[in-house]
Amino acid sequence: MRNKGKLLLSLMLLYTLLGTAQNKDSVQLKKIYTTSLLNGKSYEWLEYLSNQIGPRLSGSVKAEEAVEWTKEELGKLGLDKVWLQPVMVPKWTRGVPEFAFIETKPGKTTKVDICALGGSVATAPGGTKARVIEVKSLEELKEIPKDSIKGRIVFYNRPMQADLINTFEAYGGCVDQRYSGALEAVKYGAVGVLVRSMNLRKDDLPHTGSMSYGDLKNYQKIPAAAISTNGADLLSSILSLNPNVQFSMNMNCRSWPDVQSYNVIGEIKGTTYPDQYMVVGGHLDSWDLGDGSHDDGAGVVQSMEVLRLLKESGYQPKHSLRVVLFMNEENGLRGGKEYAKVANEKKENHVFALESDAGGFTPRGFSLDCDDTNFTEVTSWKPLFEPYLIHQFTKGYSGADINPLKKEGIVLAGLRPDSQRYFVHHHAKNDTFEAINKRELELGAATMASLVYLMDSYLQ
Amino acid sequence: MRNKGKLLLSLMLLYTLLGTAQNKDSVQLKKIYTTSLLNGKSYEWLEYLSNQIGPRLSGSVKAEEAVEWTKEELGKLGLDKVWLQPVMVPKWTRGVPEFAFIETKPGKTTKVDICALGGSVATAPGGTKARVIEVKSLEELKEIPKDSIKGRIVFYNRPMQADLINTFEAYGGCVDQRYSGALEAVKYGAVGVLVRSMNLRKDDLPHTGSMSYGDLKNYQKIPAAAISTNGADLLSSILSLNPNVQFSMNMNCRSWPDVQSYNVIGEIKGTTYPDQYMVVGGHLDSWDLGDGSHDDGAGVVQSMEVLRLLKESGYQPKHSLRVVLFMNEENGLRGGKEYAKVANEKKENHVFALESDAGGFTPRGFSLDCDDTNFTEVTSWKPLFEPYLIHQFTKGYSGADINPLKKEGIVLAGLRPDSQRYFVHHHAKNDTFEAINKRELELGAATMASLVYLMDSYLQ
Repeated sequence: MRNKGKLLLSLMLLYTLLGTAQNKDSVQLKKIYTTSLLNGKSYEWLEYLSNQIGPRLSGSVKAEEAVEWTKEELGKLGLDKVWLQPVMVPKWTRGVPEFAFIETKPGKTTKVDICALGGSVATAPGGTKARVIEVKSLEELKEIPKDSIKGRIVFYNRPMQADLINTFEAYGGCVDQRYSGALEAVKYGAVGVLVRSMNLRKDDLPHTGSMSYGDLKNYQKIPAAAISTNGADLLSSILSLNPNVQFSMNMNCRSWPDVQSYNVIGEIKGTTYPDQYMVVGGHLDSWDLGDGSHDDGAGVVQSMEVLRLLKESGYQPKHSLRVVLFMNEENGLRGGKEYAKVANEKKENHVFALESDAGGFTPRGFSLDCDDTNFTEVTSWKPLFEPYLIHQFTKGYSGADINPLKKEGIVLAGLRPDSQRYFVHHHAKNDTFEAINKRELELGAATMASLVYLMDSYLQ
Repeated sequence: MRNKGKLLLSLMLLYTLLGTAQNKDSVQLKKIYTTSLLNGKSYEWLEYLSNQIGPRLSGSVKAEEAVEWTKEELGKLGLDKVWLQPVMVPKWTRGVPEFAFIETKPGKTTKVDICALGGSVATAPGGTKARVIEVKSLEELKEIPKDSIKGRIVFYNRPMQADLINTFEAYGGCVDQRYSGALEAVKYGAVGVLVRSMNLRKDDLPHTGSMSYGDLKNYQKIPAAAISTNGADLLSSILSLNPNVQFSMNMNCRSWPDVQSYNVIGEIKGTTYPDQYMVVGGHLDSWDLGDGSHDDGAGVVQSMEVLRLLKESGYQPKHSLRVVLFMNEENGLRGGKEYAKVANEKKENHVFALESDAGGFTPRGFSLDCDDTNFTEVTSWKPLFEPYLIHQFTKGYSGADINPLKKEGIVLAGLRPDSQRYFVHHHAKNDTFEAINKRELELGAATMASLVYLMDSYLQ
C-alpha cells in the first residue's frame, strides 16, 4: 500500500512536471503566434524585398541590393553578430524578352508565350525555326526513330499529374523534362527544346527554372525554353492535325563569368550550448520573371522573423541560433553548398536546420529528415501545434539549401505550407507580392519559430 | 490452447474484414478525389454561375436565372428527381452606388469607401451629414453620455481580432456591430450608422452583410453602411485630432415587397433506406457587390458535384441523397427554414446534412453537430482522410441553412476549408471567380463526397 502510494505520488509529480512544461510551452507558442499576427514584421519586410528591390537573380545588381538590405535589417534586430559569407555565383541574363510563334504555313503564324530556361543559350540571331517533335518523356525520346528528331525542336509535353494531392510530388514527376531535356535532345541532333511549363493551371504564363547541359561544349548547346500550358496545348493540337508546322523561337539570353556574391547570416549566441548551431533559412535569390515573393521572399522574411519573434518574446536560446539567407538556390545552389563547406571547415557542430522554401501559404506542418528518436521527439509536440492547425509531421526531404548540412544525428526540417496554389506562381511572372496573404505568411513564420523554440528547449 | 487458437482465428477474421472494409473505402475515396481533380465539373460550373450569371441577391432577376440554370444542370446528371421548392424571399436593392466623405472643414472633403448594409434604408435624398461618435462596441454605446449620440452618426470601429487562428471566430466576435448596430444607435437618437468592414486586411473595399432593425417602424429607421478598413482607420485618426468633423453619406437602397423564389433540389433515391434522407447543400443567393464565387457559389457547385462524383464512381446510395441549393441565406434564411418546415410537414426523416458555406479554399476538415456516438464514428474515419490532408474533425456548429433541420440523432456537418483568406473577399466586390483556385475547389467537393459516402455506408 505504501509503495503504491509512493508510486502514485511520483506519477502525480511527474504529470505535474510534464503538465507545467507543456503549459510553459503552450504559453510560449501562444506568445509567438500572437506577436506574429498582431505585430509581425514579415509582411512589411516582404513588401520591401518584393516591391522596392524586386527580382534578384544570382549575380544581378538587385541580388546585391537584397544582400545589403537584409544585412541592414538583421543589423537592427540586436543579434549578437551579422555578417556576409562570400560565395561565387553564376550569372545568367535573359536579355530582350523572348518571343515565339507557330507557323502553320509560310506567313501564317500564331504567337505563343515562351521564356528561356535558366542557363539556356540564345537562339541564333534571327531565331531558331524548325519542325517540332512532341514527346511525353525523356524515355519516349530514346525510343522514337532518330531521324524524326534530327534538325527538329523537341517538345516535352508531359503535364503535372493533377490527381496527386501534394503538388510538389507532381512537380518532381515532371521536372526531369526541364532539367535534362536539352542534354538528351542534343544527343539525337535536335536544334532546340520546348518544355511544357510546370504549372497545374491552364494559362498563358511560361514558367522558367534551371536546366543543365551536363558536360556539353558551348558549340553543342541548343536553346531551351518553357512554353505556357495554354501554348503547349495549342501546339500539341496543331501538331496532331499537321505534324509539319514550323516553330520559331527567339531568345537572347546569355551566361557570364561567375561573380562575387554572399550568404547573409545573423546569429544569437547560445546560452548553454554556444558551440551547437541551429539554422533557420530561405534563399535570397529569385528568378527574374516575377518578384520572387513566394519563391523565396517568403522564406527569407519568415526566417528573419523567427529570430525577431524569439527575441521579442524574451526567449534566450540555449543553442547558437542562426538565420541564413542563402544565395543562388535557383541556378547553382552555391550558397547552400558554401555554408555547409565553411561549417565543416570550422568544425561547427550543426544540430538542427529548418528551411522555408515552399511558398508563403498557410502552414500545414513539417517534413523531417532525421533519425527515429528525433522524429518521435518532434511528433510528441503535435498537441502543442494543434491549436494552430498544424497537423502534418512526416518523414522526408527538408530543403535544397540545408541538405548539404546532412549528417548523422542532425535534424533537418522543411516547412510544409499548403501546396495547392504554389505552382500557379512558381518561377513565373505572377510570383508577386499581390499573391501573398499577410496572415498566411505570418502563420508560417510563427510555426517555424515554434519549432525552433521547441528544438532549442528539448534537443540535448 | 484450442480456445486461444479460436480467438486468434476470430480476431484474424475480424481484422481481415475490417481491413477489407477499410480497403474498399480507401479505394472509393481515391476514386472520388481522382475524378474531382481530373474530370471535375465544379470549376466549370462555378465559372458559369459567377461570370455568366453573376451576383444573385435574393429577389433579383439573376437569382432567378441561377435557379433556372442549376435546375437545368442538375437535370443533366440523371438524378431520380429534380424540382423547385417555392419560398417567398425579401427583395432589397442597392440602387445607385453609395458615396461618402469626411468633411474636416466646410468644403474640405476626403472621399472614403462605404456600402449600404443589406436591408438598410436610404439616406435622405441629399444624403445624411452629421458629426460622428466612434465606439468600439454596442456596450460602449450604452455607457457614453446620451447627448454625445443624439443627432450623430455612430461609428462602430471594433476590428476583427487578428490573433485568432480561425477567422470565423474573429468574425463572430465583431458581427454584432453590423447586425444590431443601427437598432441600438436609434435608441439614443443617432441619425446614421457606420460599421468597420468585417475584413482582416487593410484595404479600400467595404464589406456588406445583413443587419436588422428589429421591430422598428419605418420612420424610425436610420441608414447603416459599412466603411472599408482603410476608411475606418482614416476616419478614426481624423476624429482623434478633431472630433467635430462631419461625415456625409449618400445611399439609395430600398426594400420591396417579398417575391417568389425557390430552393433547387435534386434527389437520388436510396436503395436500402429510401425514406431516410441525407442532404448536401450550399446557398444559391449571394450579395450583390462581387459575383459570390466563394460565398457561396463554391458551396453550390461542390454540393452538385458530390452527387455527380458518387454517380460517376458507380456508387448507389443506400439512403435517399439530396442536393439542396438554398435561396436567401444572406438576408433572411428563408430557404433553409422552408426546407426544414416542408421536411417536417412531410415527416421526411433526415439523418444527415452537410453544408459548404465557408469558401472554396483548401479543405481542412469538418465541424460536426451531433451526439457523441456519431462523433466517435465519424472520427474513426480520420485515417481514410489522412492521404488528402484532411485532419480537422471538431464538434461544433454546422451551417445556417441546415441548422433548422437539427433534431435528436441527426448528424449535421459543415465543411471547414482553410479560413485565412475568406474575410478578404467575404461580402465584398472582390468575391469573384478570379479568387478561386480550381484545385482547392475540387478538393473541397471530393472531401464532401467522401464524407457523404462514408455516412451513407455506415450510418444505420
